[in-house]
Amino acid sequence: MIKAGIIGSTGYAGAELVRLLTMHKEAEIVWYGSRSYIDQKYASVYQNMFQIVDAVCLDDNMDELAKQVDVIFTATPQGLCASLVNEEILSQVKIIDLSADFRIKDVSVYEKWYGITHKSPQFIEEAVYGLCEINREDIKKARLVANPGCYTTCSILTAYPLAKEGLIDMDTLIIDAKSGTSGAGRGAKLPNLFCEVNENMKAYGIASHRHTPEIEEQLGYAAGREVLINFTPHLVPMNRGILATEYAKLTRDVSYDKVKAVYDKYYGNEKFVRVLEKDVFPETKWVEGSNYVDVNFKIDTRTGRIIMIGAIDNLVKGAAGQAVQNMNLLFGLNEDEGLKLVPMFP
Amino acid sequence: MIKAGIIGSTGYAGAELVRLLTMHKEAEIVWYGSRSYIDQKYASVYQNMFQIVDAVCLDDNMDELAKQVDVIFTATPQGLCASLVNEEILSQVKIIDLSADFRIKDVSVYEKWYGITHKSPQFIEEAVYGLCEINREDIKKARLVANPGCYTTCSILTAYPLAKEGLIDMDTLIIDAKSGTSGAGRGAKLPNLFCEVNENMKAYGIASHRHTPEIEEQLGYAAGREVLINFTPHLVPMNRGILATEYAKLTRDVSYDKVKAVYDKYYGNEKFVRVLEKDVFPETKWVEGSNYVDVNFKIDTRTGRIIMIGAIDNLVKGAAGQAVQNMNLLFGLNEDEGLKLVPMFP
Amino acid sequence: MIKAGIIGSTGYAGAELVRLLTMHKEAEIVWYGSRSYIDQKYASVYQNMFQIVDAVCLDDNMDELAKQVDVIFTATPQGLCASLVNEEILSQVKIIDLSADFRIKDVSVYEKWYGITHKSPQFIEEAVYGLCEINREDIKKARLVANPGCYTTCSILTAYPLAKEGLIDMDTLIIDAKSGTSGAGRGAKLPNLFCEVNENMKAYGIASHRHTPEIEEQLGYAAGREVLINFTPHLVPMNRGILATEYAKLTRDVSYDKVKAVYDKYYGNEKFVRVLEKDVFPETKWVEGSNYVDVNFKIDTRTGRIIMIGAIDNLVKGAAGQAVQNMNLLFGLNEDEGLKLVPMFP
Amino acid sequence: MIKAGIIGSTGYAGAELVRLLTMHKEAEIVWYGSRSYIDQKYASVYQNMFQIVDAVCLDDNMDELAKQVDVIFTATPQGLCASLVNEEILSQVKIIDLSADFRIKDVSVYEKWYGITHKSPQFIEEAVYGLCEINREDIKKARLVANPGCYTTCSILTAYPLAKEGLIDMDTLIIDAKSGTSGAGRGAKLPNLFCEVNENMKAYGIASHRHTPEIEEQLGYAAGREVLINFTPHLVPMNRGILATEYAKLTRDVSYDKVKAVYDKYYGNEKFVRVLEKDVFPETKWVEGSNYVDVNFKIDTRTGRIIMIGAIDNLVKGAAGQAVQNMNLLFGLNEDEGLKLVPMFP
Repeated sequence: MIKAGIIGSTGYAGAELVRLLTMHKEAEIVWYGSRSYIDQKYASVYQNMFQIVDAVCLDDNMDELAKQVDVIFTATPQGLCASLVNEEILSQVKIIDLSADFRIKDVSVYEKWYGITHKSPQFIEEAVYGLCEINREDIKKARLVANPGCYTTCSILTAYPLAKEGLIDMDTLIIDAKSGTSGAGRGAKLPNLFCEVNENMKAYGIASHRHTPEIEEQLGYAAGREVLINFTPHLVPMNRGILATEYAKLTRDVSYDKVKAVYDKYYGNEKFVRVLEKDVFPETKWVEGSNYVDVNFKIDTRTGRIIMIGAIDNLVKGAAGQAVQNMNLLFGLNEDEGLKLVPMFP
Repeated sequence: MIKAGIIGSTGYAGAELVRLLTMHKEAEIVWYGSRSYIDQKYASVYQNMFQIVDAVCLDDNMDELAKQVDVIFTATPQGLCASLVNEEILSQVKIIDLSADFRIKDVSVYEKWYGITHKSPQFIEEAVYGLCEINREDIKKARLVANPGCYTTCSILTAYPLAKEGLIDMDTLIIDAKSGTSGAGRGAKLPNLFCEVNENMKAYGIASHRHTPEIEEQLGYAAGREVLINFTPHLVPMNRGILATEYAKLTRDVSYDKVKAVYDKYYGNEKFVRVLEKDVFPETKWVEGSNYVDVNFKIDTRTGRIIMIGAIDNLVKGAAGQAVQNMNLLFGLNEDEGLKLVPMFP
Repeated sequence: MIKAGIIGSTGYAGAELVRLLTMHKEAEIVWYGSRSYIDQKYASVYQNMFQIVDAVCLDDNMDELAKQVDVIFTATPQGLCASLVNEEILSQVKIIDLSADFRIKDVSVYEKWYGITHKSPQFIEEAVYGLCEINREDIKKARLVANPGCYTTCSILTAYPLAKEGLIDMDTLIIDAKSGTSGAGRGAKLPNLFCEVNENMKAYGIASHRHTPEIEEQLGYAAGREVLINFTPHLVPMNRGILATEYAKLTRDVSYDKVKAVYDKYYGNEKFVRVLEKDVFPETKWVEGSNYVDVNFKIDTRTGRIIMIGAIDNLVKGAAGQAVQNMNLLFGLNEDEGLKLVPMFP
Repeated sequence: MIKAGIIGSTGYAGAELVRLLTMHKEAEIVWYGSRSYIDQKYASVYQNMFQIVDAVCLDDNMDELAKQVDVIFTATPQGLCASLVNEEILSQVKIIDLSADFRIKDVSVYEKWYGITHKSPQFIEEAVYGLCEINREDIKKARLVANPGCYTTCSILTAYPLAKEGLIDMDTLIIDAKSGTSGAGRGAKLPNLFCEVNENMKAYGIASHRHTPEIEEQLGYAAGREVLINFTPHLVPMNRGILATEYAKLTRDVSYDKVKAVYDKYYGNEKFVRVLEKDVFPETKWVEGSNYVDVNFKIDTRTGRIIMIGAIDNLVKGAAGQAVQNMNLLFGLNEDEGLKLVPMFP
């Protein structure tokens, strides 16, 4: 039985981790960290967990935690994990960091987009970017996994095969993404109030959203060159779900079958990536509550572009589900252990 | 491995049954019945099941089905199950009927409220009303289980202990219930369109809703006398969830502790009924996607009334989850097999 | 041209006042009070008002305001209006208070339910309860109008004719009300976040909501005796709208036509109260954005009860619209001036 | 007083026309056409109009209508207006067609994208494309106005100034648009059910949506050359609102101030187009219920692209509001008559 500790267990991503690990047969949570709710019953913070979780919330003591658990999940604001981690801790315990601290290899890029100084740049190099379908073998050997962002998971996996195979002109790639509101977290802020979000739609972080360099770095690895993209996130009135609509010029004249074969080459054996059938396009509801990524594409011969579309549940494959998938890889379990979640509809 | 067949597998309740049975370790679905989608792939009707269910939809042939499966679920319009069932079928297979056909013992009451002639009144007597927490032992021995309605499950369980113990004046019982829209089914009808339901609230079936006599009958058994109530359902703009707010005069002066003890007496050992802590009242989100019933109460000494509140997921405890719970009882499995679902929040 | 000042113009009720007065031909807003946003452009707080309102927000100086305007609207937390008002101010200006400060005649009841000391009890007696359809003539002569609460407006008007005519047993009256989330205000509180409200339903303030004594007082006047009721509000995932479902025993055997005639007697000439046709029941969407109150009823001969249902837009007839209606009465304008708003659907 | 007739008055666009014209001081509706509801009271189809509209629905008799009214609005499926109109009718009455029949000048393009044969190609040439801000003078003299589509209105106006001034490379223009569900109409279709739309997001009509050639034609006029674009619409769970996010390469190095000046050149005097302040981006809620188009832009120097964003209420500026604006132009009224609608928030 894997002993898990969660720092930041009372945010939405942390709570989803609790939900998933509670149903996981090979893991148990022994530490519910939450700076805001120390000594309060976890189930009083999330009443859905009444009679399911009896524990009280604890503090952020990573040193102590490292002694008690096999894996630490940090579902915390940017900068916290980097400020707590050290060699002694990493020698005792695996860390899966759901923040952005170890996702970006170039520390100056991180510091520029996030506006904070990185406290542990020495661990950036060894950290493995935890996009399981791409970095599976490296993850298995890692001590520190940088769990990808929600938008980035969806955005990267949707375009990855075509970037890797050189089928799209990376200079023309535009990603227009839409997200449910849980991605904004559980902070009590005016823009996240029901009446401000409901019956409303908006773009935000235009040409400045922090997931941009993360997508650029990973798709850059795939393409074998530096990549600059436009990424625009939007907020829509729903709880869960990310839809990414991506546009790029094709580098050559290709058929549907050819492109489909490329997607199948990379994802045909992936349990959690479903390449939909021809002319069936992803809808976020079809993956809700599950770890699936649904993808598909359409070639527009009029403009020479391909439109790629992907959908995930931002709290599952975009956060907690992928974190559990990474844990499974780290500990040699079946990759889908605890993740055989059938999407809930409606 | 229990072989299950579903007649009506493409309605919302049927689809939820598919979701739950797909995750159930002791059961497998071998017949996806759907009159509307015969020969179509199930996953083309519910794309969330892509790569999870490969089967195609079949017809309603209950005779053939009885030979192939151990249990038949009928998630069909009123009247269909009664028109198909016969002694030969019942001698071969267990039936769990999610329609109202066998819920009401007095056939004239059924025919009056439902406006149809009952085709198999000879089986009404033996059918067991499948409210597991109340009729557990009878269910275990049944051939034919009448799975309760969604409103009725919530309404009955919320008031049951007090009705049973004579703490409330049944002549004063008023049930004001609110439901998400999945309870209205997947029929393409104008009142169920997004723009008609969203940002809207209404009462319907006022003093005439068909779940009224079902609640009256069951609470009448508990109270040991005939009961007439007011039951008013409301439609609210959400997918899942029922909240029942119930009002009654207390028959004597009782304390919070006394009433709490009564609820605990009946539900203290029930896994799926959670009596919440003092002054914490049910919210539908806390049970979403799970088989839980959350209940609590408040005594109003000013008026001498008690307000009882209950919440369920109408598609789980209000339909498919309870059907699976009944299947578990029928086949001697752990009652929570396949139902250890942690509520999803948000 | 009536000069109006608003204290608390940046809450949702204040913002709705701004919307309505902006479209009102006989009034203009000359003071946008907002303690939280002093010196900021009003349109930066509510971007929908960009290029419509150019003013900046001002402070709460009621003395100064009294010199500059003809009418002051206070859309502020409980206690504020009572703490600011004095005889000099009332001799200069009309006040329409959207808070509860002057709604309840018995100051001890107010202080008990609201938990604050009333700072100006000397004005309670002269204040007129601004439910226009009931107190029209008194309002016309008032200096200080206590604008009714949202739940109370809907709850009272729905039952008023029957209470007045003695057709219902007031000891059996139960009001189960449901509201959209704008009623909770624009404060940045966790329970009002989108992800907490969306896909969720709950009761709150059970047997303790502050609108209870206000309803009891007004229906008590109608009935000619003291009244105690059960009032239970619920939060539903929508922006606007209140639906009240009310239950009471009939005091005598009456027909639909007789009850309809009673409603028509009181509301037949009321522009803003619509008694719907037989078996057509109010839906909140049908009044959204307008000052209408829709009401109807159903007699249940089985239980001897009548079910009365009413719907309003909580921000219009439940707050700002009624305030404008009161202003029109105070200044001798047509009562529907600026309120000829056609409900928006969908 | 302008006498108006509406063919197709019971769809959502038709109903919005009724709402707007009911509040219009210079117009009255004398013919509520609705093939589906002939002889039924209009207010029984839209209960929000109870006691506001007393008329019953009539048929589609355009010949008769032409004798009785000054202007006919056709809010009907594609092909209907073209099949009814003729020279005699046009000599008697103005027609504002809300369908696509007369929007596209090249009949072969229309027939290809819409898949129907055009019945009155002889009137295409004289029909004026009713995008008021662009074609104001021509509209004033027209007999037949082709009211623009909802997506197209928003998409065109958002990019128009930059296309006209040659600041963007039209070959790189990508329009990613998102719409509320009222745009799908009031037809009782499964994909438009509440439970299918709520908590869901999807793209549709990918590389094939009918508004594509309409946008291409109009932006082509602005750019002075033929234009091919990618246009992808998305469905989001809300009633009203369109948000268009548009991407294009800048043709030269320009500053924010320069681009802002270009927008102001075209829209500075337009009442209904609001160019927002720097770094304030359109949200659909800010225009809800009104005829406004909110636009803004962001230059991304990293990629050399400009991101342009626009928002409208699809039923107002995207349909009925623009139709009324066109009527005002046709009859020499103030362009904003009946359209001084303040956006409703929340």
